[in-house]
Amino acid sequence: MDFEHYFDWAATAPCDKEILRQSLETAMEYDANPSATHKKGSEARKILEEARESCAKSLGVKASQIFFTSGGTESDHIPLLSVMNSPKKGRIIVSGIEHPALREECLLLKKQGFELVTVNPDKNGFISPQEIAANLDGDTLFVSVMAVNNETGCIQPIYEIADAITEATKGKRRPHFHVDCVQAAGKIPLDLSHEGIDSAALSAHKISGPRGIGILYLSRPITPFLAGGGQESNIRSGTENLFGALAFSKCLEKYYLSKDNAPALKRFEEQKEWTRDFLKKLKEIKRCRLVPEVREDFEQTDELFSPWVVQAAFIGIPGKVMVRALDAKGFAISTGSACSAKKQSRPILSAMKASREVQDSAVRFSFGAFTTKKAMDELFDAIKEVEAEF
Amino acid sequence: MDFEHYFDWAATAPCDKEILRQSLETAMEYDANPSATHKKGSEARKILEEARESCAKSLGVKASQIFFTSGGTESDHIPLLSVMNSPKKGRIIVSGIEHPALREECLLLKKQGFELVTVNPDKNGFISPQEIAANLDGDTLFVSVMAVNNETGCIQPIYEIADAITEATKGKRRPHFHVDCVQAAGKIPLDLSHEGIDSAALSAHKISGPRGIGILYLSRPITPFLAGGGQESNIRSGTENLFGALAFSKCLEKYYLSKDNAPALKRFEEQKEWTRDFLKKLKEIKRCRLVPEVREDFEQTDELFSPWVVQAAFIGIPGKVMVRALDAKGFAISTGSACSAKKQSRPILSAMKASREVQDSAVRFSFGAFTTKKAMDELFDAIKEVEAEF
Repeated sequence: MDFEHYFDWAATAPCDKEILRQSLETAMEYDANPSATHKKGSEARKILEEARESCAKSLGVKASQIFFTSGGTESDHIPLLSVMNSPKKGRIIVSGIEHPALREECLLLKKQGFELVTVNPDKNGFISPQEIAANLDGDTLFVSVMAVNNETGCIQPIYEIADAITEATKGKRRPHFHVDCVQAAGKIPLDLSHEGIDSAALSAHKISGPRGIGILYLSRPITPFLAGGGQESNIRSGTENLFGALAFSKCLEKYYLSKDNAPALKRFEEQKEWTRDFLKKLKEIKRCRLVPEVREDFEQTDELFSPWVVQAAFIGIPGKVMVRALDAKGFAISTGSACSAKKQSRPILSAMKASREVQDSAVRFSFGAFTTKKAMDELFDAIKEVEAEF
Repeated sequence: MDFEHYFDWAATAPCDKEILRQSLETAMEYDANPSATHKKGSEARKILEEARESCAKSLGVKASQIFFTSGGTESDHIPLLSVMNSPKKGRIIVSGIEHPALREECLLLKKQGFELVTVNPDKNGFISPQEIAANLDGDTLFVSVMAVNNETGCIQPIYEIADAITEATKGKRRPHFHVDCVQAAGKIPLDLSHEGIDSAALSAHKISGPRGIGILYLSRPITPFLAGGGQESNIRSGTENLFGALAFSKCLEKYYLSKDNAPALKRFEEQKEWTRDFLKKLKEIKRCRLVPEVREDFEQTDELFSPWVVQAAFIGIPGKVMVRALDAKGFAISTGSACSAKKQSRPILSAMKASREVQDSAVRFSFGAFTTKKAMDELFDAIKEVEAEF
């Protein structure tokens, strides 16, 4: 399949075929159960631990802080559900722009008697550290704010939020602060080791790895509510997915943005430029509204957004119509999250109090490692063509 | 790696390389997010649904009853955790020989206020349908009995248990009856569509598929306690693992025992004969005790056990020592479940009230599709050699 005109990287990234093929061959070679005590088991275990070491190195954390899971959803669920082990059903604070894995699970926890406080973003899509801090009480167990929003690309002030939580709870019990980094890891520079970030969720398939593998970063161990065979130091039970772990480690090595990864940093800078150019051209379309509006001042607000995600509304053209029209021309885009593609609502835009017409017509363009400038130019031309027909 | 002398198939099966490679190529070709609404998404969705249809056909159920999960553990957790949505914290009945995915999770649910009743097997490792029925009360929400025990190979009377539950609750609310089929699917003939079986857990890697993919069979929809993007008809959230689903569907097609699958049935009959021969030879070793003892009358009890699993104790030789000694000779076996390999306890043997000396010295030999008669003979010779040294 041709992925040249694929602009739905935030939903899933076309895979890095070489990494996947190589990882599968290695995994098939070391094919015993890594938890088995015989030699073949130990050999598989060794490969798994090497993959963990490699991930830790890429992420700048310790190998003992890396736990392989089945994906972003599970990496969100494990720390969230650990509140179930709390003797008292306290408060859970989540941003109003979280992924459904958190949003929906929080609603179930509310039914269990937890107090759920949702902190909405400002009209530009940003969560305020002060507002998070102001909502903390002595019974707050868990706070969750994602690093990069999957629909708007807004980079959230996660370090400031971590600091604000630490400051506000000085001398008291700190709640667990979780950061969903699914749209951030391998997309923007990230410092998971920042004091006060207790856990982070990562997913391989957003950076060209396989589906079905995720990482849960934990600054220190937690007591999970999902139990079983006790693999992954009791944090995530289930036979270890060596293929996935290996492929994820290689994708992180290749795509994760750290100071040691010059090619990825170069690609990031390049994308910033291309996205600026794309935004500039979109701005010239009269009925186009960049979402949030503040993104129109991209020369000033550049650093606040992931260059890999652009949300725009073409007033008068329903989002679904734009998706279909571009699809017919061979361009794949989305209205928003694939995880809620089938639903009509736009909870994130709604939390930002975007107008009805913006919500109805907003679409998401998302880019990735294999995106070319040429393809982005062609995308823009196609948008112009569609737009001209209305 | 050489898997000829690998006898730990119950922990994980060496993979079917051809199936895995082919499935990966197809998955990489259809690499969009199956939940995305554009053409590439729909094409990926189509492949996913074909895989589901194929699984359903192999299993003799409807495609709408098949849900892809991340593995056996998750396929056990989803139906079990759905009790959390019950307005009243009623009773949960589990057999004393369940996989840790159920056993350990049930202990966490007990802490949440559910009443946990464990029904132990008889000394031969079998759960009594009458005893399950006798423990039902008006508030029983969930009953779980596995199809084939992972350590002893005992085939549990799951159909009789389903019937007993139905009979005992006639005119009343039936509890959910879950069957962990991880050691049964693709190993022994199985009828998931039997009335009264509400759910079943299957895992691909036990039948030469990849790690990280499982199936949850549901006779009818349930309300899960794990929520997110709403994939898999809201039963299992998380971006769909197309590679895993495809590979699992092909493994089921090749290995699942149904009347249409003559090669698999032939291999099954062959294994029965080889295992009988193996048991016969083991019986001749003076200090060897087959576990459970009733397996020594294999001519009578043959149909009660999976031919793919043999548990035996060599009195006076600690299980770990036997594992290590055989390992040194190039034969991979386990003491018991890999999911509890690191723990000293033998909960299943303990539930069967096996003697201390049997618990200490018991080991598990497990076989699979690629096992040869020659390799089994060589295994026996190696056992004899080790045994002679003590």
